Order: sequence, then C-alpha cells, then structure tokens
Amino acid sequence: MTRALRDRFLAARKLTIDLVKPLSDADATVQSMPDASPAKWHLAHVTWFLETFILRDHVPGYKAFDDDFAYLFNSYYEAEGARHARAARGLITRPSLTVVQTYRAHVEAALDAHWNNLPETALELVELGIQHEQQHQELLLTDILHLFAQNPTFPAYWPEPVMRAVPDQQTRTAQWLAGPTGVQSIGHAGSDFAFDCEGPRHEVFLKPFALSSRTVSNGDWMQFIDDNGYTEPRHWLSDGWAWVQRERVEAPLYWQKDRDGRWLSFGLDGLRAVDPSAPVTHISLYEADAYASWAGARLPTEAEWEVCAAPEDASAGNQLDAAGPVRPNADGADSLFGNVWQWTGSAYRPYPGFRAAAGAVGEYNGKFMSGQFVLRGGSCATPRGHVRASYRNFFYPHQRWQFTGLRLARDV
Amino acid sequence: MTRALRDRFLAARKLTIDLVKPLSDADATVQSMPDASPAKWHLAHVTWFLETFILRDHVPGYKAFDDDFAYLFNSYYEAEGARHARAARGLITRPSLTVVQTYRAHVEAALDAHWNNLPETALELVELGIQHEQQHQELLLTDILHLFAQNPTFPAYWPEPVMRAVPDQQTRTAQWLAGPTGVQSIGHAGSDFAFDCEGPRHEVFLKPFALSSRTVSNGDWMQFIDDNGYTEPRHWLSDGWAWVQRERVEAPLYWQKDRDGRWLSFGLDGLRAVDPSAPVTHISLYEADAYASWAGARLPTEAEWEVCAAPEDASAGNQLDAAGPVRPNADGADSLFGNVWQWTGSAYRPYPGFRAAAGAVGEYNGKFMSGQFVLRGGSCATPRGHVRASYRNFFYPHQRWQFTGLRLARDV
Amino acid sequence: MTRALRDRFLAARKLTIDLVKPLSDADATVQSMPDASPAKWHLAHVTWFLETFILRDHVPGYKAFDDDFAYLFNSYYEAEGARHARAARGLITRPSLTVVQTYRAHVEAALDAHWNNLPETALELVELGIQHEQQHQELLLTDILHLFAQNPTFPAYWPEPVMRAVPDQQTRTAQWLAGPTGVQSIGHAGSDFAFDCEGPRHEVFLKPFALSSRTVSNGDWMQFIDDNGYTEPRHWLSDGWAWVQRERVEAPLYWQKDRDGRWLSFGLDGLRAVDPSAPVTHISLYEADAYASWAGARLPTEAEWEVCAAPEDASAGNQLDAAGPVRPNADGADSLFGNVWQWTGSAYRPYPGFRAAAGAVGEYNGKFMSGQFVLRGGSCATPRGHVRASYRNFFYPHQRWQFTGLRLARDV
Amino acid sequence: MTRALRDRFLAARKLTIDLVKPLSDADATVQSMPDASPAKWHLAHVTWFLETFILRDHVPGYKAFDDDFAYLFNSYYEAEGARHARAARGLITRPSLTVVQTYRAHVEAALDAHWNNLPETALELVELGIQHEQQHQELLLTDILHLFAQNPTFPAYWPEPVMRAVPDQQTRTAQWLAGPTGVQSIGHAGSDFAFDCEGPRHEVFLKPFALSSRTVSNGDWMQFIDDNGYTEPRHWLSDGWAWVQRERVEAPLYWQKDRDGRWLSFGLDGLRAVDPSAPVTHISLYEADAYASWAGARLPTEAEWEVCAAPEDASAGNQLDAAGPVRPNADGADSLFGNVWQWTGSAYRPYPGFRAAAGAVGEYNGKFMSGQFVLRGGSCATPRGHVRASYRNFFYPHQRWQFTGLRLARDV
Ligand SMILES: [Fe+3]
Ligand SMILES: [Fe+3]
Ligand SMILES: [Fe+3]
Ligand SMILES: [Fe+3]
Repeated sequence: MTRALRDRFLAARKLTIDLVKPLSDADATVQSMPDASPAKWHLAHVTWFLETFILRDHVPGYKAFDDDFAYLFNSYYEAEGARHARAARGLITRPSLTVVQTYRAHVEAALDAHWNNLPETALELVELGIQHEQQHQELLLTDILHLFAQNPTFPAYWPEPVMRAVPDQQTRTAQWLAGPTGVQSIGHAGSDFAFDCEGPRHEVFLKPFALSSRTVSNGDWMQFIDDNGYTEPRHWLSDGWAWVQRERVEAPLYWQKDRDGRWLSFGLDGLRAVDPSAPVTHISLYEADAYASWAGARLPTEAEWEVCAAPEDASAGNQLDAAGPVRPNADGADSLFGNVWQWTGSAYRPYPGFRAAAGAVGEYNGKFMSGQFVLRGGSCATPRGHVRASYRNFFYPHQRWQFTGLRLARDV
Repeated sequence: MTRALRDRFLAARKLTIDLVKPLSDADATVQSMPDASPAKWHLAHVTWFLETFILRDHVPGYKAFDDDFAYLFNSYYEAEGARHARAARGLITRPSLTVVQTYRAHVEAALDAHWNNLPETALELVELGIQHEQQHQELLLTDILHLFAQNPTFPAYWPEPVMRAVPDQQTRTAQWLAGPTGVQSIGHAGSDFAFDCEGPRHEVFLKPFALSSRTVSNGDWMQFIDDNGYTEPRHWLSDGWAWVQRERVEAPLYWQKDRDGRWLSFGLDGLRAVDPSAPVTHISLYEADAYASWAGARLPTEAEWEVCAAPEDASAGNQLDAAGPVRPNADGADSLFGNVWQWTGSAYRPYPGFRAAAGAVGEYNGKFMSGQFVLRGGSCATPRGHVRASYRNFFYPHQRWQFTGLRLARDV
Repeated sequence: MTRALRDRFLAARKLTIDLVKPLSDADATVQSMPDASPAKWHLAHVTWFLETFILRDHVPGYKAFDDDFAYLFNSYYEAEGARHARAARGLITRPSLTVVQTYRAHVEAALDAHWNNLPETALELVELGIQHEQQHQELLLTDILHLFAQNPTFPAYWPEPVMRAVPDQQTRTAQWLAGPTGVQSIGHAGSDFAFDCEGPRHEVFLKPFALSSRTVSNGDWMQFIDDNGYTEPRHWLSDGWAWVQRERVEAPLYWQKDRDGRWLSFGLDGLRAVDPSAPVTHISLYEADAYASWAGARLPTEAEWEVCAAPEDASAGNQLDAAGPVRPNADGADSLFGNVWQWTGSAYRPYPGFRAAAGAVGEYNGKFMSGQFVLRGGSCATPRGHVRASYRNFFYPHQRWQFTGLRLARDV
Repeated sequence: MTRALRDRFLAARKLTIDLVKPLSDADATVQSMPDASPAKWHLAHVTWFLETFILRDHVPGYKAFDDDFAYLFNSYYEAEGARHARAARGLITRPSLTVVQTYRAHVEAALDAHWNNLPETALELVELGIQHEQQHQELLLTDILHLFAQNPTFPAYWPEPVMRAVPDQQTRTAQWLAGPTGVQSIGHAGSDFAFDCEGPRHEVFLKPFALSSRTVSNGDWMQFIDDNGYTEPRHWLSDGWAWVQRERVEAPLYWQKDRDGRWLSFGLDGLRAVDPSAPVTHISLYEADAYASWAGARLPTEAEWEVCAAPEDASAGNQLDAAGPVRPNADGADSLFGNVWQWTGSAYRPYPGFRAAAGAVGEYNGKFMSGQFVLRGGSCATPRGHVRASYRNFFYPHQRWQFTGLRLARDV
C-alpha cells in the first residue's frame, strides 16, 4: 500500500513539473494580484509543506535545504511562525526557478531515502501532501491564467495550432432532475482520504427540489447580458450590485469583445471565440446568484448538490489528466463533476461536530470559515481523482479567477 | 382591530419623538460613519416609508409633503429610483430637525384623515410601518451612541445623576441546558406579523447540543483579554485575525482604560466603570467566535437558538420600554431575550422555499443575504414587543456598534 | 492707537457673528470634507487663539473657559500639544453653537477687562488675532459654500429674491500691460502688519513681461471647455492630467448643466446661471495652468504680480464689506485686487533670509512651505483691508473650493 | 564628429548591457513599486525611444520590430497614443529578457545601417537618445536596488568578497564656503547638449550665502536620529511630519539595525555596516529639510548651488564608470559633483522664457513641473559625463529610492 502511495506521490510531483514546463523564470516569479501566487511560490510551498511536516517532524536529524525557505514559503500557518507577506510573494526573484526545482528534487530524494522508515502518521501526511499538491496545481493554472490575462499581447500558455472552430452543435436542453428529500446524510465517512471540513457525516432535512441536468452555458449567459442582466439591480444581491458598479463588471472575467462585437474569452490556450455550448466560467457568486434570480431559479445548497452527486462517478467529466490546454467544454456536460466548480448558495461553515485537527496542520481549513461560499464538483483544471461528492471548495463571493460556474436548482 | 393597530402605531410614533428629545439639531444631523445614519434621517426615512407605500400608493390624490424627500430619505429601494448616497447622509443640514418633525406630523395627520378608508393591504403596511419604525428606533440609539463616542468630551445622551456603583454580586454561574434534537421545525408560521425572511417554516435536523444559561459577561471577557485573547492568532478566524491586526482591536468597542488601568465603557448614559456581572456587548462576530474558541465552546446555530427560545416569553428580559438610559445589565440574565443580540454561527441566507415579496417592499430583506451573520434575541435597545423567537437580525462579521453579545453552545 | 486697534478688533469680531447669522446649529457643525472645517469650529478656534496666546500667556491668573477647548479647537500648533483630528472636526456636536457664542463673548469680555494692562507683545497678538480672524472669515464662507453644495436641494446661504439676469454687457477686452523689469524688490517692509512669510523684502531680477488687464472670465472658460480643454492632455501638467482623469473633472467646481445644457453655478446666493462676463472661479492650479497653456500664455510669477500690484490700491475691487451674498462679478474687473485669488506659477517657499518666529505662533506659516502654490490679490470673500500687494495666500494645486481664478501673463 | 557621437552611442548602449549582466529574467521583469520600473522595461523603453523618434520618423520604410512594443514601452508620451499602465509594467513576463536584448540589437543594427544618411535632426536625437539612456541607467540601478531590498534574503547585485571594514578616518570637518552674490546668471547656454528645462540662461539676484564644503554624512545623521530628529515635530515641514507619521519613518531608506543595535544599510553590494564618514543617502526632501532645520541651517537654492558649481569640474567625484558595485563613499567628498544628488530648496518650475519643444519629444520635461523639488550634482550611480552644473534633476519630496542626500547652506 505504501508502494501505491509512493507511485501516486511521484505522479503528482511529476505533473507539477510538467505543468510549469512552458514557464520562464519570469513567468514563474510574477504575482498578478494579492489573491494569486507566483508559480515558483506554489512549487516551493508544497515542497516546504512536505519538508516541514514530514521530514522535519518525522525524520530525526533532517537538515533544512535552506533556512530562509520557511519564512519565504509558509503560506498561512501561524503556528509555524513569521512569514513573508502574501501580497509581496511576487517580489522574490531569488531563489530562481532553477533553485526551486533543485529544492524539489532535494526533498523528494530525502523522502525517498527515508520512505521505508516513515511512521504511519508521516504516511498520512504524505497523502495530505499529495492532496495539497493537487490543490496547488489547480491554483497554479488559474494564477498563471490571471497573470497572462494582464499582458496586452495575450500570450497563450499552451498554444494550440489552429483557432478551434466553434461547434455547430446546440447547447443541449436542460432537464430538471428531482433529488432525494427528507432526512438525508451528507459529509465524508470512511477511511479514504478527505479534508477535515468534509466531516463529520451528519443528517440534514431536504425539501423537494430539482437540479438542472447541465450547467449554465455561455449561450445562456449571453442572453442574460443581452437582457440587461448586468444593469438591472433587482436581480442582484445588495453586495453584488455594489460590486458590479464599483468594478464596472459587464461580463465574465476574461471576456472581451472583438471589433465586430463578438465575444472572445482568454484562456490557457489564448484568446478565442466564446463557445455558446460550453459552460460559462470565471463568474462570481454574485453573478451566479443574479443569473439564477433572472432565470427564476436559485442556486442549489451544498447538501442538495451532494445528495445528487453521491451516487455519481466523481472521476468522470472534463478534469485535468495531463499538462496541456484546459478549457470547459460541452463534451463533459453530462457529468455533475468536472468542467467548472459550481457555486452553491451555502456559506462555508463548519458541519455539526466539526473540530479542527491539532497542530499546524489543523489550520488547514477551519479558520477560513467566514465570508466564503461553497463550490462543488471540480473543474477542468482539477487533477482527476482529487475531487469527491463530499468535497467542499470555497471562495469569497466576488472572486472569479478560478474556473467557477453554476448549475441551477429550484423548489419542486 | 384597526383601533388597536392605531394605538400601537401612535405609541410607536411617540416613542421615536421621545427618543430624540435630548438631541440638538446638530446631534440629529451628523453622521459618524457610513454604517450609521443621522437621527434626523431616521425620523424622516420611516415617515417617507409611510408616506410612499401607504399614502402615495393607497390614498388617491395624496400630494407629497416635499418632492425632494423621496431622493433624500429613501434608504435602499432601487425600485423607488435614485437616492442620496448613504455615506453622505450627514451632509444634509437642511431640512432642519424642526422641519422633519413637521413632516412627521403632516404624514400622521394625513394617515389619520384617511385611516377609515385604508384598504386591507394598506393596513398591513401600517403594521410593517410600525415594525420598521421600531427597527429604526434601535438603530437611532446605536447611531447616536457611536456619534457621541467620537466626541472626546464623551457627552451622555441621558445623564444619570450618580455614577452607578458596580454591584457586588457575582456573575451567576453558567449552566449547560440541553436543547431539543432530531427533526425540528423553525421559522415563522401563522398570521401574526413577521418579516419575510423568517419563513417559510421548515424542518431542520439537530444533533445533541446545549446552550449556556447566560450570555458571556464583562467579567468573562476581561479574563479573555488577560489571557492574551486578542493577541493569540490560533483562537481567531483568518478574516478575524486580519481585522484585529488592521484595526488594532484590543477590547470591545467603547471600552477604554482609565489612568489606573481600570476598564471603562462608554454608553448612552456616559462613561462608566465596566460592570463585570453585566453581559459583554459591542463585540464583532470575529470576537465572539474567538472567545468561544478560547473557551472550548462554539456559537449556537440559529436553529439551535430558536428551538430553545420558542417556548420562552419573547417580551421578557431587558428591552426598551421608554426613552431613557439603556445598558445591558445583570438583572435580565435569566431570559433568552433582551440585553444583547446574540451572534449565531449561521450565515444569513434564505430559508428553503423563501421568495421575496413583489414590489419595492420586497427589497426589505432578501437582497442582504450574503456576507452577514444572524443574531438572535433582541437587546436592551429593542422596543419591547418587537422581537420573536423566529426573528432574524443580521450584521457583517466586523460590525459591533449594535448591542451585540454572545451565548455559548456546545455539542453534547 | 490701541483705541483704533480695539475698534478694529470689535468690528472683526462682529463681522464673524454677522456671517453666521443665517446658519443653524447643524449648518455650523457639519464638516463636508477634511479640507474644510465647521463654521462652529472656526468661531471657537479663532477665540481659542486669542484666549491662549493673549489671555493665558499675558494675563496672570486667567482661567480657561473650558479645559477641553484647547484639545478641540487647536488647529495645528504642535507646540500646544495633542489635538482633535482635523478630519473629525465635524463629529463634535457638543458644545453647541450657542455655547461657542458664549465662549466668544466670555473671551471678549476678559480681553476688555484687561485691555489697558496688555503689554505691547500682547497688543501685537491682538493685531495678529484680527488678521487671523479675517482669514477664518473667508474660510468660513468657502467651507459653508462647499457644505451647501453637497445638498441636492442646493440651499442658498443668502437667498436673493430674484434670479439675477445675466447682464448683456460684453466681457471687456483684455489688454497686455507691461510690468517693471530688471532688479526689483518684493516682500513686505515697514512697521505695518504683515505675516512672517511676506518678508524679508529682497531683490529679484525680472525679464520683460506683461500681465493681462483682467482675469479670465467665465465666457473665456466656456471656450476652453468647448475646445476640448479638459480632454486634451497636451495642455496639462502631468499631475494635473492624472487629477482630471481620476476625479473626472469637466468644469470648474460647482458648475453643472441644466436640462437645456446651459451652465449654472452654485454660490453663496444659490444656483444661478453662469455670467460670462464675471471672472471664472473655483478652479485648481492645474486648470489655471492648462488654460494658460491652451491660450498660449502662462501664469505670472508672484514677483511679477507683486511689482505690478505694489502701486495699486489694495482695498479696491470686489471684496467683503459685510455679511451678505458674495460672488465674483464683472464690475470690479479693473482692479488687481478682489473678485478672485489669482494663482501664480510660484511655489510657496521661504523668501531669502526668512526665519520663522519663535514659539507656537512661529508655526503660523513656515511649516506649510512645501507642495503649495502662491495666490495673490484677495477675493470677493476677503474682508476689505485684509489683503496687501505683498500678501501670499497658498493652496495645493488640486484645491479649488476657495474663490480661485487666474490672470494671464506672457513674456514680452 | 558623427564618429565621436557613434562611439559614445555604442559605449552607452554597451554599459546598459553590462549593467544587467547579473540579472536573471525574473530580476529584470519584476516591478517593486509603481515609482520603479523593471530593468527589462528600461532596456526596451530606451530602445523604443530610438526606434520611434529616429528610425520611424527619419528612416523611410523602417518597419517596427514588433508592433506591440509601442504600447508596452512608451513611458508617458501622450502624443504617441495609448500605452500600458505604469503601475502594471511588472506584469509583462513576455517578451522575455532575451527577446528584449534581440530588440536592442535589431535597433542598433538598423541605426548602423542608416547612420550615414541620418539628417542633422536625427543626429540630435541620437544625442538625446544617449542622454536618455544614461538617465535610465541610473534609474535601472536604483530600481533594482529597491527590488532587492524587498527580498528578506537581501541578495547583493554585485557581491563583494569581503565585508568592507568601516574606515577609521574621521568625517572631515565641514567648512562654510561663501558663494558669489548679487546679479548672477544661471541656466545652460551654448551649443553643447542640455535638456530643455536647463534653459534659458537668465539672471537671478543672490543675497550673501555660504555652502558647506561637504555633504551631510551618515555620522551626522546618526546624531540627528539620536537627538530625536524623527520624533520632534518642530523640525519638520507639515507635509513632512504627516509623512513621517503615516509611513512610520525612523531612518533613511534601507537602514536597519542588527541585533546589537548597530546600523546596517542595504546597497547594491548587499547589507553592510553604515560608514559614518560616507555621505548619507536615500533620504527624502522632508528629511533633508528637517535635518537642516535641526542643524540651524537650510537647503541651498538651485541658483546658489549652480553658481558655486559652475567653475568646478562636473566629471569629478564618485560617479559611475563601469558596471560594478556603487555606493556613496567618503573619498569623493571634496567635489560638488557625484556621490549623492543634493536636494535643493527650489521647486522644479520653468525658468523665465522656458518653452517646451514641439512634438512628442517636447513632453520630456515641462509637464513634470509641479509638486517636485530640484536636486543637483549627480550621484555615484550617474554615468560620468552625464551631469553638468546646470543639470536639474527632480523628484517628489517624499521620494527617496534614488541616491539622494544633502549639502547645507546658510545666510551670511
Ligand atoms: Fe497550501
Ligand atoms: Fe428602513
Ligand atoms: Fe487658524
Ligand atoms: Fe524615458
């Protein structure tokens, strides 16, 4: 079993390296906004996590690769002491990308050398380290996308040779699918890996409801825009309306019009025509909520979403398999998983009986449980195998640089 | 029945006028922060509400007292058109307090003249108008308190002749009281008045829990302070910790130390010694949550609070009976109601099946359902009779100029 | 001579009281922006100045009217200790306007009682106190104008019965008047009162130049607007262009268009049609400089202005004689003095040999000598008799709530 | 003569390349604050200047290297159209440093190919291009210094093998040297190159004054600190005092204390002990003015400085000769030139008769003439040969990331 773990560990580490292959030292160093981190920082931070919580804590005599790295690459663990300010991560031009890759190799080699002597607790931390690395793989992609989007020359991360023709196919008609009701259970149970915030498993009471069979598409969204969706306050939450006006929001992030008034969107494969049949993405909770209100529907709660998703295959749909162009597409639309993270109407709060783990690792989730909303389902940038029905992602309601979208719900 | 309604209406209107008697024109005009409104604005706004939604909409031929007032005194009703910016309310020195009082009398007289011809819908709006006025009575008191607290001479709203001696009595020992569990119902039902956000009534599933028999006291809070509560990040939500550091928060709002290092707090009756046996107040959700974490407990959910409160007398405890000094005190501590609004751990979100009312009045609550937390129970500044077990108050997690406090809960 | 001083003192004190007669307690209390102060604050501050530097320092045994007032009404004298934050002056609703007027009377009576025993130094401070009060009279008027301009009902300070018809008369043609050149002297000399920054008198070397015979008029300014003056960057200083874009400036402060596209301007006498023949006012240094650049001219230096003004009658032109409507007008246009303060191209810096006075009074001017530009000539709101040829007023280049205008100059 | 010009041109271009040799692609891309620019941007911008104003405007048929570069690398020339926002220069990871170096080579080759056919106007622009490149060489060094100073590991640009021992030598005693008085001439005249703002040459009138024989040293500055220089408001300009408090300034930029309380300063050669005998640097105008006030002296005017400097050798002192460690030192202290730019008390305003050149190049200086102060003399980072007695450098009074210092003056 530790062999399988080791294979998965090495595969995850390799995928990270594959993802940054198209990046120059400069690409990997710059931070485009406080919410985003440099690619180089992601590479080093996930490695610091392994070095600290496994090698330092469980391998007697291990000597840190570089004593400055704890200060530079700790993200938010208060228990681990002072650290570099988040908004200033992009000012660290040294160590270089090359040195960081050496750091990665050094820590991997050290883990390899001690693998057979790691105690059970440390192996659990390896599992956590894999999951952690996968989370940062998705963030790395979305942070690079945000960075490249600031460049007026719109460089493509992974150029594709030809501009993909927008498929002729119609967006498929949405169906309302009724979900299970009454007393239901949600949350993770069992011995497989899950983050602490996914449990404890507990009962909820659900009124009759239905979920849409597909996520909202770009074509749907263009109708919302054309029907003054962004200028009519009655669709919007009060905070959302203030945000739209303050930020002059008129369309999803990364959308722009060409000279002929056609919508283009910038993605990891460059600037391309918006595909009406693909799921809309890069929208905030405020936009998702306004759309649902305009459509006479609502967002699902996280419980509604989970009870529908529980019987489904979480590894289906459009998810990340390898380094290469990723974009939500119409193909995976039959799955509840993949393509875009789906905003729910549920605030990210602890489940009944939740208790954060002890120690620094216990800071992983619990302290973020205010002001954020839950998203479910994974996206085209989520490494396949990472997401589950019980998986709770969370962002602030104005954030939209992730692959965020929505699926409508309604009362029955 | 309309007679009783009319008596309650007149009593509510009179209480407002009584409340502003100690205020000068200047006191009633200045706005101390964007979150607060001038007393004069409150007086005029609740009157504009009556004039617009009853007289204009239901009394044919009614002519507005002043055509500018809709622009000046609309709070946030997008459907009612453009309005004066909220943060600039304090720049309106004219109309004067006297003119606003004339406006009040004018609208009351017009209502009186047409009372017997008001349709049922209009009488429902009178009821809403009373409830609305009561809400603004509490806001008026807390906004004046905030204003006076900015004055380095610390003027008392209602001076009391002698500095009240801090009672000798011990803070009573807190008990853990188990609440009902399993499938329970919460939310308003029936024909009595309630705000739209209090319904629909619906089932929830509750795990075993207990509420504390009393709110957290000032004495408790001083222990939290002395135990480095405000300087130890592990107790705090991440957003809360950022807030504490950014705002340099070290104690509840309005607390200060005298030269001998004793805690004083400023209230509507001036600057006085902190009474250890009285409930702590003017704390943010972040502080409430950090305290609970420090105490090894948690905040109750709004459902837990409501199922415990449902059998209790909502008009009991320390609530507002008349214009005069108000301060949380130890006497009302046996009641779930009164003294201080109790932060819950529940985000303010719609209940299952919630649908906002049509028209401008429908903007009353629904659009505020993001980013805020629910508080329950009413305070010493809530007009007695206004609050209910199902009543949902809501504020942003950093706000603390209301009479906010907390009651601990825990899993059983 | 002290008799004449006393008469002038009492006249100045009375004018202040006359100026505030139209103001309510609320009008006199609110602060519309950090740069402005409440009228009540002006009333109290000039009185605190007298109380502190004359009564406290020169009348043995004098007891302060209220010990809190030094904290509340000190403006910026670091040597006088801690003081209330400037931006929070408008939060002081108590003491009331009435109490402040009592304070004024109390200090005047105390001065009266001790007048004959005041040492020479104290009498010099009386003179300074008069000049100081006159400065604050102008500020009081411009601060009230700014406050009333924030009120969407546009109340007039001194209503005039009829909307003044815009006179038919043409703006008079501007002449270029050559000034004296070569080695010239500027700055105050002699025993009459002058502020410290007006001296020492010293030589400057002037190249041939000419001043315009009149200030730039509203009619001129409308041509600048119509010729894209506000949207063409090449006319503007770099800081000015950034300011125009950041603040979305499109016209002088207080200008707005009516429904028919005609320019109105708000003044102390309410909202009225812009008079093309009157001097333009409420413009920033940036606007003045851009206009001059557009017009192929430049701003005069303060030395050029002063050598031209030295032989002229400084008490001529449109200046403040009594409490009542003030507005720049075409009538006083022959005078270098009055109507509008004229921006010069000179930075406000010390003259050669300048040395600030000792003590708190020495903070009067010297410490403001960075970042500001000099204005000359006085305005319609300057008490007649206050201004001189050597008088140096100064504001930051973006400020325009004073009665600021410009007179063109050019090289010959 | 064009041969000599060409040699100087090639030497200047080569020095730029030598300066960036220690920089990685990431070092050259990141922007540490809006006032600073990435090294890569400097490299490209000076090249765009040559390409645009010489090749595009004077070489028929020249085709731009890359059409996007005008947008990316125009600094502030409004006449050249829209451009990338200054504060976002650091987000441009592509083109890479390598591509930018290719761009440089391409433009140099094109110039070479057409050199013999360039009209006289174009050759003047080559001279301007050299001077422009030299200005950006100094900015490049100070911008990199600022960037590296944000890195908690304090990387040295040019590491020196050993920590230089602080010399034993005493700071030499300062002498007061009287300058010429009465009517004097300043400003550039003649056919040598000078920036437009250095003329026209004109008369000024100077009162008797003296300049210090040396700049203020680090040792002097430590005395100022120890005598509460940064905490005593009476030394400071009002804007300066507000800046000190807002920014919590306690020492020159890049100074920090080691664990033993000794002052270190970070420079292009890393973190080293402060040398008391070297000139103080990285101070703002506010600090310079406060120091002078504390020392009972004042800043010189730019005219005073220039009449003293006119007979001196402008190429003397500690200036930049080659790529390598630069730091102000005690050795060059006899010269008026080099080591540190000396703040003067003169606002940066046009000389009498100044008129900006026509066209885009005319935006070079004139539009920056508000809000800034003049500095004179060049620094250790100014390419030798670049500075003159009439040379006017200018920065805002709070800026201090340049090699700024001061030399005292006083009235005689
Ligand atoms: Fe992480
Ligand atoms: Fe309201
Ligand atoms: Fe004053
Ligand atoms: Fe440049």
